[in-house]
Amino acid sequence: MGKRKLYMGYAWFNDKQIGMMNEGLNILKGNSSVDWDNSYRPLEHQYDGINVEDDPSVMRRVDWQDETVKADEDALRDASAGVFLYNPSEPDEGITSEIAFLYAIGKPTVLVIPDDDKTPINLMPAKWSTAIIKLSELEHYNFNKIFHQTYHGDIY
Amino acid sequence: MGKRKLYMGYAWFNDKQIGMMNEGLNILKGNSSVDWDNSYRPLEHQYDGINVEDDPSVMRRVDWQDETVKADEDALRDASAGVFLYNPSEPDEGITSEIAFLYAIGKPTVLVIPDDDKTPINLMPAKWSTAIIKLSELEHYNFNKIFHQTYHGDIY
Amino acid sequence: MGKRKLYMGYAWFNDKQIGMMNEGLNILKGNSSVDWDNSYRPLEHQYDGINVEDDPSVMRRVDWQDETVKADEDALRDASAGVFLYNPSEPDEGITSEIAFLYAIGKPTVLVIPDDDKTPINLMPAKWSTAIIKLSELEHYNFNKIFHQTYHGDIY
Amino acid sequence: MGKRKLYMGYAWFNDKQIGMMNEGLNILKGNSSVDWDNSYRPLEHQYDGINVEDDPSVMRRVDWQDETVKADEDALRDASAGVFLYNPSEPDEGITSEIAFLYAIGKPTVLVIPDDDKTPINLMPAKWSTAIIKLSELEHYNFNKIFHQTYHGDIY
Amino acid sequence: MGKRKLYMGYAWFNDKQIGMMNEGLNILKGNSSVDWDNSYRPLEHQYDGINVEDDPSVMRRVDWQDETVKADEDALRDASAGVFLYNPSEPDEGITSEIAFLYAIGKPTVLVIPDDDKTPINLMPAKWSTAIIKLSELEHYNFNKIFHQTYHGDIY
Amino acid sequence: MGKRKLYMGYAWFNDKQIGMMNEGLNILKGNSSVDWDNSYRPLEHQYDGINVEDDPSVMRRVDWQDETVKADEDALRDASAGVFLYNPSEPDEGITSEIAFLYAIGKPTVLVIPDDDKTPINLMPAKWSTAIIKLSELEHYNFNKIFHQTYHGDIY
Repeated sequence: MGKRKLYMGYAWFNDKQIGMMNEGLNILKGNSSVDWDNSYRPLEHQYDGINVEDDPSVMRRVDWQDETVKADEDALRDASAGVFLYNPSEPDEGITSEIAFLYAIGKPTVLVIPDDDKTPINLMPAKWSTAIIKLSELEHYNFNKIFHQTYHGDIY
Repeated sequence: MGKRKLYMGYAWFNDKQIGMMNEGLNILKGNSSVDWDNSYRPLEHQYDGINVEDDPSVMRRVDWQDETVKADEDALRDASAGVFLYNPSEPDEGITSEIAFLYAIGKPTVLVIPDDDKTPINLMPAKWSTAIIKLSELEHYNFNKIFHQTYHGDIY
Repeated sequence: MGKRKLYMGYAWFNDKQIGMMNEGLNILKGNSSVDWDNSYRPLEHQYDGINVEDDPSVMRRVDWQDETVKADEDALRDASAGVFLYNPSEPDEGITSEIAFLYAIGKPTVLVIPDDDKTPINLMPAKWSTAIIKLSELEHYNFNKIFHQTYHGDIY
Repeated sequence: MGKRKLYMGYAWFNDKQIGMMNEGLNILKGNSSVDWDNSYRPLEHQYDGINVEDDPSVMRRVDWQDETVKADEDALRDASAGVFLYNPSEPDEGITSEIAFLYAIGKPTVLVIPDDDKTPINLMPAKWSTAIIKLSELEHYNFNKIFHQTYHGDIY
Repeated sequence: MGKRKLYMGYAWFNDKQIGMMNEGLNILKGNSSVDWDNSYRPLEHQYDGINVEDDPSVMRRVDWQDETVKADEDALRDASAGVFLYNPSEPDEGITSEIAFLYAIGKPTVLVIPDDDKTPINLMPAKWSTAIIKLSELEHYNFNKIFHQTYHGDIY
Repeated sequence: MGKRKLYMGYAWFNDKQIGMMNEGLNILKGNSSVDWDNSYRPLEHQYDGINVEDDPSVMRRVDWQDETVKADEDALRDASAGVFLYNPSEPDEGITSEIAFLYAIGKPTVLVIPDDDKTPINLMPAKWSTAIIKLSELEHYNFNKIFHQTYHGDIY
């Protein structure tokens, strides 16, 4: 019935991450407990419409840096929960920073990992997430009930 | 119209508390401003499905303790507000800790007391709750408007 | 579809502020992304129903002061976001305090300014708001997506 | 060398609590890692110098209630850590609320219990405290290093 | 004995504010409970050493705005308490925003006002400050004990 | 004069990280603004004295995981600031999570990187740190003044 407005975090720095991002977003779009339209996806929000792929030197500008991190940080404030598409074998410090920030300001997080990636997960993202689920569970996961689940995979 | 997703706190350590819990939950279930299905009730969420009544010694295990408090803490993060079923004459440190946590992370709380329990309430749960209402007011309380009400009963 | 429950902040200490308040509230009432009924407007909530205009000396009572600030503070906890009707040329320390509080507890804010008021805005309310919009944009602003916008007006 | 400025919490509603308070404060005064003079003890700070024992009806005044809880809350903000003198067999909702508040705003807590009180402790104060120590350990406890200790007593 | 590291806030937009700033800073420098050297004073920290008085157009640059607010915000995180030099008759939204931020992240604040300025103070800075003192009290105020004081001047 | 009590974060999962850890800790020990004895170093605090190198299977136990993350989290609450020894070319999600947590609860962070590691840094740890300094600057860095510095290296 209700639909949850999410901060959708992911990485896009290599093919494996991009694969996870695309597959995960596609599933999230079809999940009936997700308010897809109002959820936030970082790549859809560029500072003043600037496309860094056209000119990567923009990333060296202090204003680009400040406004980009602020946009993400503000979106974490606007969301009612976070969902992160994550490969344990491809560490991503952006995702894990965002999980920690949400945890500290009192919002829940779902960490989604591939079904077949058995790489141990760092203690902090593992324990500061509310639930860690497999990609195959994402389609039917009920985001209106982000309750604690004990993770029994490897953690380091 | 909208329905609010709540953290429903209560105590169950003596008959009076269990009476308050059962009566209160029953009324909350019928309150049209409450999203009963997605609200959190601690007793419905046991660590790895372990029932401590079958084996109370489990409560001495550090993992049971850590995972149980974490489940409640995460549910406080997931909820948009708290409601607590409370007998002033039967102090409960769990309920009052949860009210303080919600207050500090910026979420409102409704404290529900019996109509006929005139026991003074401790200053902190009394003042860190957003509103203190009588059980008889619970049925029609609008959880979409948890606004401050000055409590005029005894406080100590 | 969804409607957002807001803390609606404004000032009413001179005609210009009252004009902004009335015009802004009227537009907010018609905005289809706003949950007008459940949103909080400070002037509709007076401590124990006391009207300070009948007896301004009430404002010197410590209980009036404490209960009034608490009502606003609790409403900031209850809201899912803030909207403030603000004239840059008429500084208001209440509005700017509330924006800072929301920012620190992890909730987003929309600051609404008149179309023709070019007065520079103080850095803190300007940068701790999620978006600064013109009054003419308020009617169609989608409060379900309070995302960061870079403000390009004057700041001091 | 350094001395830590503490919020010193305790209860004084029965003889056992008063005994614990007096004994604990006396030891804290002699602990060389404690900044006794600048630490906060609630009973030394009464609203406008009013002594409620002279006139208990004062406690029904809204201003007394608001100012008293505010004084404690502000002192929690001022302290760099908390220490609580606590009998598990004499539950106290004030102490446990204050532990929860400190936990949520990011400050550590030491919970001090009598050597011979084996009563189980509620999960929240037990797990949201940084360390639980015996009264006999208080004299030499180093408050400059309030690090996590796993409690192995009973918790419920 | 100990000395407290403070965030020292003030305004400098008119002569009255500059007078208050200079007088207040001078007294703070001589207060033996203040760690003057390690305390933060905004005007001593300019983004990349840029002096906006040489070129006020710098203030329109997004990077200047972002880095300037970030420097102040980070200094609020670094401080253990705040002190603000403030004329009630000259409202300042920067000062009041900073008080609200400190309050929400759990740090105390001392608001210093001139001895002869009887202008009512806005409820939020008045009530979210831990203590409001007169300029004549500043010299001997003990910043190691920033405890709640009830303000009995006018508030609106 | 004063010395600051720090949370000292680092990684130890490969030789480069261990090199950075050892070199950095050695310098911190000699920095006269650091309270070395009371600062927290994760490797010196193992759950119940268990050495996971003796039996790595311990890391699969839920109690080990919960108590280990709780020890670090509590130490972040106990510290007055954080310092992290970090190689940008060796991402570490633990360090970056801890920076984000400190940022959200209102404490400052110094991120220390090698002089010759030009790898771009992720936006969040880069911008949520208060200052990013080179290892060669660590010896004389004044931890009593952790003020914002604009980083001009590469960020992504």
